[in-house]
Amino acid sequence: MTFDAPTLIAAKRDGHRLPDAAIDWLIEAYTRGTVAEEQMSALLMAIFLRGMDAAETARWTAAMIASGERMNWRDLGRPTVDKHSTGGVGDKITLPLVAVVAACGAAVPQASGRGLGHTGGTLDKLESIAGFDATLSTARLREQLAEVGAAIFAAGALAPADAKLYALRDITATVESLPLIASSVMSKKLAEGAQALVLDVKVGSGAFMKSAAQARELAQLMVELGAAHGVPTRALLTDMNTPLGATVGNALEVAEALEVLAGGGPDDVVALTVTLATEMLALAGLDNHDPAATLADGTAMDAFTAMIAAQGGDLSAPLPVAACTETITAPAGGTMGEIDAMAVGMTAWRLGAGRSRPGERVQGGAGVRIHRRPGEPVSAGEPLFTLHTDTPERFGPAHAELDGGWHIVDSPASPPPLIIGAIP
Amino acid sequence: MTFDAPTLIAAKRDGHRLPDAAIDWLIEAYTRGTVAEEQMSALLMAIFLRGMDAAETARWTAAMIASGERMNWRDLGRPTVDKHSTGGVGDKITLPLVAVVAACGAAVPQASGRGLGHTGGTLDKLESIAGFDATLSTARLREQLAEVGAAIFAAGALAPADAKLYALRDITATVESLPLIASSVMSKKLAEGAQALVLDVKVGSGAFMKSAAQARELAQLMVELGAAHGVPTRALLTDMNTPLGATVGNALEVAEALEVLAGGGPDDVVALTVTLATEMLALAGLDNHDPAATLADGTAMDAFTAMIAAQGGDLSAPLPVAACTETITAPAGGTMGEIDAMAVGMTAWRLGAGRSRPGERVQGGAGVRIHRRPGEPVSAGEPLFTLHTDTPERFGPAHAELDGGWHIVDSPASPPPLIIGAIP
Repeated sequence: MTFDAPTLIAAKRDGHRLPDAAIDWLIEAYTRGTVAEEQMSALLMAIFLRGMDAAETARWTAAMIASGERMNWRDLGRPTVDKHSTGGVGDKITLPLVAVVAACGAAVPQASGRGLGHTGGTLDKLESIAGFDATLSTARLREQLAEVGAAIFAAGALAPADAKLYALRDITATVESLPLIASSVMSKKLAEGAQALVLDVKVGSGAFMKSAAQARELAQLMVELGAAHGVPTRALLTDMNTPLGATVGNALEVAEALEVLAGGGPDDVVALTVTLATEMLALAGLDNHDPAATLADGTAMDAFTAMIAAQGGDLSAPLPVAACTETITAPAGGTMGEIDAMAVGMTAWRLGAGRSRPGERVQGGAGVRIHRRPGEPVSAGEPLFTLHTDTPERFGPAHAELDGGWHIVDSPASPPPLIIGAIP
Repeated sequence: MTFDAPTLIAAKRDGHRLPDAAIDWLIEAYTRGTVAEEQMSALLMAIFLRGMDAAETARWTAAMIASGERMNWRDLGRPTVDKHSTGGVGDKITLPLVAVVAACGAAVPQASGRGLGHTGGTLDKLESIAGFDATLSTARLREQLAEVGAAIFAAGALAPADAKLYALRDITATVESLPLIASSVMSKKLAEGAQALVLDVKVGSGAFMKSAAQARELAQLMVELGAAHGVPTRALLTDMNTPLGATVGNALEVAEALEVLAGGGPDDVVALTVTLATEMLALAGLDNHDPAATLADGTAMDAFTAMIAAQGGDLSAPLPVAACTETITAPAGGTMGEIDAMAVGMTAWRLGAGRSRPGERVQGGAGVRIHRRPGEPVSAGEPLFTLHTDTPERFGPAHAELDGGWHIVDSPASPPPLIIGAIP
């Protein structure tokens, strides 16, 4: 069957379903360049405004998986399971989490990406460790998963259609479409080949999804896509109105992850790590393990150290430290109120922790340290935030972003729950 | 003020108005390539689905005019007036019309285009005349308008943003949007500099606008755009369910236009020519002239001959004749019923009279001659249609298009009115 792009664009524009064979053709022809970028962008806008139903989204996802390799870990000797977060501020959970799950006997093949805008990328964080290399051949990846139980690597050849589409969506205002977000996430995660998936769908000011209703709809769609591809998938909805932990920025977050792996670290980071590990282990059939114990007894730290070493990283080398800092002190005493995740994320981005366009270099040491977290008592004059950057001209715009993003209040309010819901 | 394309695309996507300065920036930045084709196509789809209001459409049109030269004929010594047709089947009216209006003392600076799909282009028709050249410098154009009173030339440098946008719309299924059609037509016509405009908005199976309501809306929008730019504009809505005249195809239509200029030709072609000329002359302040008289007394033919000669054309050379013909004869006697304009237009296109993609060569001699027009008596076995082409393998697809597009009926019905309405 032959198709032509304008006819298919017109069909979606007019609110019709795209037939399965048409979706296969579109993704394949776009990947090899027969469907032009300007045709795909018109189609993406039509999808944004007209939607795709569950069956169309499933086929779109399958076609994106088929644009590249789909990995298979069935003969690895360990059950495989992975986690994906839709992106938040201070979200360094992947780092301790893969180590905890590996220490409990599963293997985590985590294909990851670099950050764009106010949310950081896991690879950017790990690349602040001297020598760390995210490029792994399939053979080395298999070896590392069998031996260490965890690998965090650049998605690269997985679902190449998605990489091309994502770059296009970014410049054409077609990112925030539920079917396009769900198919983008799930095509990469399903191509990655893990036998089960746990999704951390963030809700709140610092997340893509601002409302729980939106987040629930996205989570439902992604869970269905997993099931349609035979991969048991569970989603947690978690709060992203407040940054996770006390640090935002690449090396700052690695240091905090190491604290958690050493048995310490902020309560919320520990709690979310353990909760997500529990879900992953249940799906992997390893629910007789206690993930929290691996943080206390050092086995998770051992797994993390082994993973970093296997990928060339040197944890004995000092992490990058920014050349300049500025501290914001409390104008009055009281209690720290809510801290807006988006404001802190934008502040870290302005300081150089994130990038404005793909390929831009990020500063390893840049970011924000939060000294007093919501609900904690504050004395007048004590440090509340420290801003870190190598480039002091960034302090002005950074202060402007943070300004108004936090408040000192008279009496503490109870913090919002970290876990908002689960699907199914 | 600086803008960025994704923010403006998102605004239109979400149903907001585009501010004037944003429209100016978008068209200017797109023309010089700062706004990428894929960004403009996403915006066009958002405009297609979300619309533009009258003020946005006026500004969009003004920005497209400003992307190139706007001609000015105020010191020509004759009033200038032009006509635009939204495109039909067998619509050769421009050829006799410009000559009639010139013979009455006005000047017609007609910027014209080449055809795409089932409707022919005026330049394609004229280029079937040996030596005719549609490329005129502004200086030669001015001279010809002053001396001859008519010129039909390639739009070229007028509203270059529109030429770029039109090519993009053609491959992204964003052609049939009223604000985009209206701004495309009016940007070229207003840049052309005529002091008044008459629009022939076609309605029916062979037209872009299938319903009178749609056509009226488009006409209203274009008349307002003319007024907003200080150019008195009137629109007629005319029937395009049936082809105009008895011929469809480039040289076949030139021959029919010459019959009309010689005082003969099909009734409907003569009637529409005289009606449109009357409107144009009224807007040009020359309503004391009788356009029909110029067809009877040969002065319109003189003006046409002078225009063709001024552009290098040789009317004494034979017009191209197709190498092969096939005739369709009447299976039974009766009366010719309706003849579907779209079916005949597609037949002529299949025979080689039109093109599938921009730049393709067309056959000068290809097309359809209609021997019995709706309401005329038919005897069994007599010729009804002759198909003309240089490439006989085209007869099969051509017959398939024409099949079912006409019927012989028992008793004649009165033909639909040619002029359906006028705005204002």
